[in-house]
Amino acid sequence: MSSPTSFSPIGPVVGVVGAGQLARMMQQPAIALGVELRVLANDPGESAARVIVDTRLGDYRDLEVLREFGQGCDAITFDHEHVPTEHIRALAADGLAVHPGAGALVHAQDKAVMRERLTGFGAPCPAWARVDDLADVERFAAEHGWPVVLKAIRGGYDGRGVWVCRDAAEAAEALATGVSLMAEVFVPFRRELAVLVARSPHGQGVSYPVVETVQENGICVEVLAPAPGLDPEDAAEAQRIALKIADELGVTGLLAVEMFETEYGLVVNELAMRPHNSGHWTIEGAATSQFEQHLRAVLDLPLGSPAPTAPYVVMANLLGGADPDLFKRYEHVMAHDPGIKLHFYGKEVRPGRKIGHVTALGTDLDTVRARARHAAVYLTTGEYT
Amino acid sequence: MSSPTSFSPIGPVVGVVGAGQLARMMQQPAIALGVELRVLANDPGESAARVIVDTRLGDYRDLEVLREFGQGCDAITFDHEHVPTEHIRALAADGLAVHPGAGALVHAQDKAVMRERLTGFGAPCPAWARVDDLADVERFAAEHGWPVVLKAIRGGYDGRGVWVCRDAAEAAEALATGVSLMAEVFVPFRRELAVLVARSPHGQGVSYPVVETVQENGICVEVLAPAPGLDPEDAAEAQRIALKIADELGVTGLLAVEMFETEYGLVVNELAMRPHNSGHWTIEGAATSQFEQHLRAVLDLPLGSPAPTAPYVVMANLLGGADPDLFKRYEHVMAHDPGIKLHFYGKEVRPGRKIGHVTALGTDLDTVRARARHAAVYLTTGEYT
Repeated sequence: MSSPTSFSPIGPVVGVVGAGQLARMMQQPAIALGVELRVLANDPGESAARVIVDTRLGDYRDLEVLREFGQGCDAITFDHEHVPTEHIRALAADGLAVHPGAGALVHAQDKAVMRERLTGFGAPCPAWARVDDLADVERFAAEHGWPVVLKAIRGGYDGRGVWVCRDAAEAAEALATGVSLMAEVFVPFRRELAVLVARSPHGQGVSYPVVETVQENGICVEVLAPAPGLDPEDAAEAQRIALKIADELGVTGLLAVEMFETEYGLVVNELAMRPHNSGHWTIEGAATSQFEQHLRAVLDLPLGSPAPTAPYVVMANLLGGADPDLFKRYEHVMAHDPGIKLHFYGKEVRPGRKIGHVTALGTDLDTVRARARHAAVYLTTGEYT
Repeated sequence: MSSPTSFSPIGPVVGVVGAGQLARMMQQPAIALGVELRVLANDPGESAARVIVDTRLGDYRDLEVLREFGQGCDAITFDHEHVPTEHIRALAADGLAVHPGAGALVHAQDKAVMRERLTGFGAPCPAWARVDDLADVERFAAEHGWPVVLKAIRGGYDGRGVWVCRDAAEAAEALATGVSLMAEVFVPFRRELAVLVARSPHGQGVSYPVVETVQENGICVEVLAPAPGLDPEDAAEAQRIALKIADELGVTGLLAVEMFETEYGLVVNELAMRPHNSGHWTIEGAATSQFEQHLRAVLDLPLGSPAPTAPYVVMANLLGGADPDLFKRYEHVMAHDPGIKLHFYGKEVRPGRKIGHVTALGTDLDTVRARARHAAVYLTTGEYT
């Protein structure tokens, strides 16, 4: 690893394993709170490494690297969920304050463990089963019908590691990848919702308003906060489910619960234990951003107000297009809409890559949504919607 | 100077001379906009140097240091107003984009030049004169009466460099300091106001709402936004005056105009050409913070909306007390008020030093003001108001 910085910390030190845009966006509230961030990066050009002075280089799969990284940190947390569970357990055994802990985080790393646990305390889940071979899948289909959703138990994200199989031939293709799979029934949903909650080590919890997430090809492209037209009873139920999961699993930090809204009620889809794309709207749209909330939670400080700052907030992701230079389009979007908020992640543009997001706030949902979409489309393609 | 960072910039590069809290707070919107900040610091432990990767060490009074610092910057701006005017002129002659330019900035560096110019185009100023000796001061007093306010023409701030003299004996004491002085009539004011405006190189201007600044011992302790009970005509007049000054002086970036509200109307007191303490409320309290606005202006990008996000916003400065450890008091203030926003500058606590600020937002001014005051007093003294 590279050497430490040449100044002594004044505030608490939070170490973040991983240097993507989530760690980068933690730096904004860290600057305000006087929290000193340290980040473990692979490369000094990574998104968060560009804006965090105390950047250490090293491999998060190496326990000794993690141990050295953790020295002097008041808390350790993550930009992603790929750190081996046993390493997290070892760091905690060394006496380091790791949030979330291994016992919680495994539920965001291993979908089968998550389903077992959630089913155990009655959180609404689709029917599911571990499957080792095609016979297992066919047995599952015989009971629940096709299509069957096969999911990689570990490592999938942004639509990768999920196969919606209409028949045994398609299931065989997924099985041929060789990764450990589980089966779930296909949930015919009306739309996708997400609930972001925070929980601190001493057990305080807060929930942000329930949002609607709009996906294209398995990637979130737009978030509407709050979820428009959601029945207040359903919204409260979604928040209760998310807070219950955080409490049952002992989550410390943020928990994003992705849900399906179906005609039979809410169904839990996925969990993430960190700031989440579905919560980027909180940077301007809530009294406390998800990034500040995460820092407060992992330092076991009282949580901040999740109150929204506007009736409607819409976040649209910027997915890289063919053109590597987006900055030349700032002039138009800023002149067109002096209230639009731009967020770039300091990443090279690659087609399909999440390189930033935009946020619009206001009182009329259609207008707010059109503003966010205009900025996102123009910035990434140069097209005028 | 230390060596440059090991990654290539992706976004535009803005160089900030000086590494205090103003440069530090520019980093938050720079992270969002994908603007790469570079800072010229005296010490790697300074406020902004702690949070900006591309920190160079060097003396801003040395033109060669400034020239090397400016290489590769798309714009150069300042955390303070102490860079010699002739150095700024030399950098511009080299072809660097320096904002504000020397021709504008001199009016924030030299109070006599400022008074000459403002009087010239009719901005409301107190009667004033350059004074070289006691005879000059006595002549000024014979015409305008005692008390006479003597001011250091260059270098004063936060009440330093200002002497309110009731008689010739007190004036003689100020003259004995040996600094170049000017005299102004004492303005009996009702309260102090400030107007923050931005102006970009191609001439776009915006004004934030007029605020009231509350001073103690010459140091701003509290800012109320908007200024409560201000007549809308007076507010519009204050904004017109500030925009006119920005335009006449050719300011690029931010301009803060401190004014007195008197029974005869508004009088201009001081100018600052950079983000200003009277604008810290905009971080949460306006659609575009003053720090983002400054970056947009110096990059000649369209300016952002200055619209407030709440009916009332109150900012209270944190002035260091006897206790060096403020972090232990986070628990109380965060639990007491989940909506309070804390800002620490990463500076060692020294008595009287500005080490941070707090911001409260809401609909009832008295409540908002009490919340800000409670947090500020508790954080700095441990006393419960």
